[in-house]
Amino acid sequence: MNETNLQVVLESRPAQRVEESNFRFVRAPVPDPREGELLVRVDWLSLDPYMRGRMNEGKSYAARVELGDVMVGGAVGTVVSSRHPDYVEGDRVLGMLGWQRFALTDGRGLMKLPDPRLPETAWLGAAGMPGITAWMGLELVGKPVAGETLVVSAASGAVGSVVGQLGKLAGCRAVGIAGGAAKCDYVVKELGFDACIDYKAGPIDPALKSAAPSGVDVYFDNVGGAILDAVLRRANTGARIPLCGLIAGYDGDDIPIRNVFSLLVNRVRLQGFIVSDRMDLWPRAMTELAGHVAAGRIKYRESVAQGLESAPRAFIGMLKGENFGKQLVRVS
Amino acid sequence: MNETNLQVVLESRPAQRVEESNFRFVRAPVPDPREGELLVRVDWLSLDPYMRGRMNEGKSYAARVELGDVMVGGAVGTVVSSRHPDYVEGDRVLGMLGWQRFALTDGRGLMKLPDPRLPETAWLGAAGMPGITAWMGLELVGKPVAGETLVVSAASGAVGSVVGQLGKLAGCRAVGIAGGAAKCDYVVKELGFDACIDYKAGPIDPALKSAAPSGVDVYFDNVGGAILDAVLRRANTGARIPLCGLIAGYDGDDIPIRNVFSLLVNRVRLQGFIVSDRMDLWPRAMTELAGHVAAGRIKYRESVAQGLESAPRAFIGMLKGENFGKQLVRVS
Repeated sequence: MNETNLQVVLESRPAQRVEESNFRFVRAPVPDPREGELLVRVDWLSLDPYMRGRMNEGKSYAARVELGDVMVGGAVGTVVSSRHPDYVEGDRVLGMLGWQRFALTDGRGLMKLPDPRLPETAWLGAAGMPGITAWMGLELVGKPVAGETLVVSAASGAVGSVVGQLGKLAGCRAVGIAGGAAKCDYVVKELGFDACIDYKAGPIDPALKSAAPSGVDVYFDNVGGAILDAVLRRANTGARIPLCGLIAGYDGDDIPIRNVFSLLVNRVRLQGFIVSDRMDLWPRAMTELAGHVAAGRIKYRESVAQGLESAPRAFIGMLKGENFGKQLVRVS
Repeated sequence: MNETNLQVVLESRPAQRVEESNFRFVRAPVPDPREGELLVRVDWLSLDPYMRGRMNEGKSYAARVELGDVMVGGAVGTVVSSRHPDYVEGDRVLGMLGWQRFALTDGRGLMKLPDPRLPETAWLGAAGMPGITAWMGLELVGKPVAGETLVVSAASGAVGSVVGQLGKLAGCRAVGIAGGAAKCDYVVKELGFDACIDYKAGPIDPALKSAAPSGVDVYFDNVGGAILDAVLRRANTGARIPLCGLIAGYDGDDIPIRNVFSLLVNRVRLQGFIVSDRMDLWPRAMTELAGHVAAGRIKYRESVAQGLESAPRAFIGMLKGENFGKQLVRVS
């Protein structure tokens, strides 16, 4: 091919907050697939908080990105040429294609878009990895029961929005925590949560007491820190806390759990989980989530950044909570 | 009866550390049982860390002791008179008889000593509530698997000693943490643990690295605080932490969990539990534990304080770790 590939590689590891200078743009020829390979044009790149962990030196829950390597990322793309038996030109595919315009792959971890009813970007959000993360945290740890109160932080985001809607489908009272009145309005009025706490608007404790008057049975934690402690002060006996993310600590801030006695006194189950640990559950999760999305039972919102050049800035903004809903990059 | 009863009542709530002045001795006539009741002479009183929580004003995992009430406590005793259909004079019984010489009871929660092969005090230790606590934390949360490494704090105590021995029976490497060389010697040489760390002898991190070279799969936590954080630094993927007690924080000290990222990165399950939540499991636990004790597969050691008058001082000493093994009071 005569086109040029554009890639975003990790230039340096963040000292604390991520800076645009941590990334570097690289231009290279678009490679031709060899036997058993295929070339995919990336159409939509997904930006997700887990990528922050991959930028660090230390142990994360998945292999770090090495300096000079293309940043990892899930994406939806179109096969432009194939010497792979399972794919032909024009196939729409989903996989870990990375922050780049063209990806060469041997097909491992790749799949064709499973259900034509859904918008293609849904496979990067509510019906994809973020939605499956929500589903799995509830399936493995949260185990919501009708009548219980479920609380989720980062409630308007790609994961949190699905958590709350799955909670409602399970018959729970769903309470979101989000930053700002606009996100809280959306969580209640569009997504159908029973209440949403704007953590920027005032102290969390009285707001949580008012929003969860019967206490908290399930807390799906995306942030850690002070909000986790506040929820522990309202935890009911036998509460479950799927620990999905620790946004409050991603830049190196100390985020201790202070209310340790609540864990004991209330027999709380606090459990970290990683969505990629249980690939065996992905097909069931995707089928269920796609059904909910197709039927309008799960709604979502997207923030779209235009062009791969905007990916670093959009990623940094997402880590600060500047996005609204699922953050995507329109690459091609 | 003409005898006088001696009781220990809660006189005041501890400001921080428990003082002898928090207790008061009361003399009263020994009551006569009415229809459906029985009178029990307390022979052995069990002293256990959970009692510290009952002395506080706030919410604990069980009803607090009210000021002026007899302190709660498990005990082994002898029926001295009965108007209850299930008991006759001379029966040896086990129940929550309290810190007193004679207890009047309607038989709820009482049982006859189940197995004559065992020394009667075993029902207050390895085959009783502390042993069942060890068993249940492993059954519900710890789930040790042969070949894994199991670590337990307060390892020479009534609960910890059983945890490690059950771990060995499950085929694990058992590592204790205890205070002082004598306790550590006992844990390794008498109880058969593979290693024991004297937390008073030096920094915990290098000692833990040496004692648990393959990392930690199960940590049965009786203390919380800095030791929990040290174990989290060595936690393996999928580690389980039954949270049984928080001795480090019983007197009001702040004992935050600082290593929160380990919970997420290593998909740790941290779960508080209370042995009385699952009374349905007690019969199976007692049968298994009694079998192990009778066969010599589970060993234990006791510290005996003489006379009910010594109970407050013995209790305070136990909270400081001055006891060695199961702390008992010889009441009658």
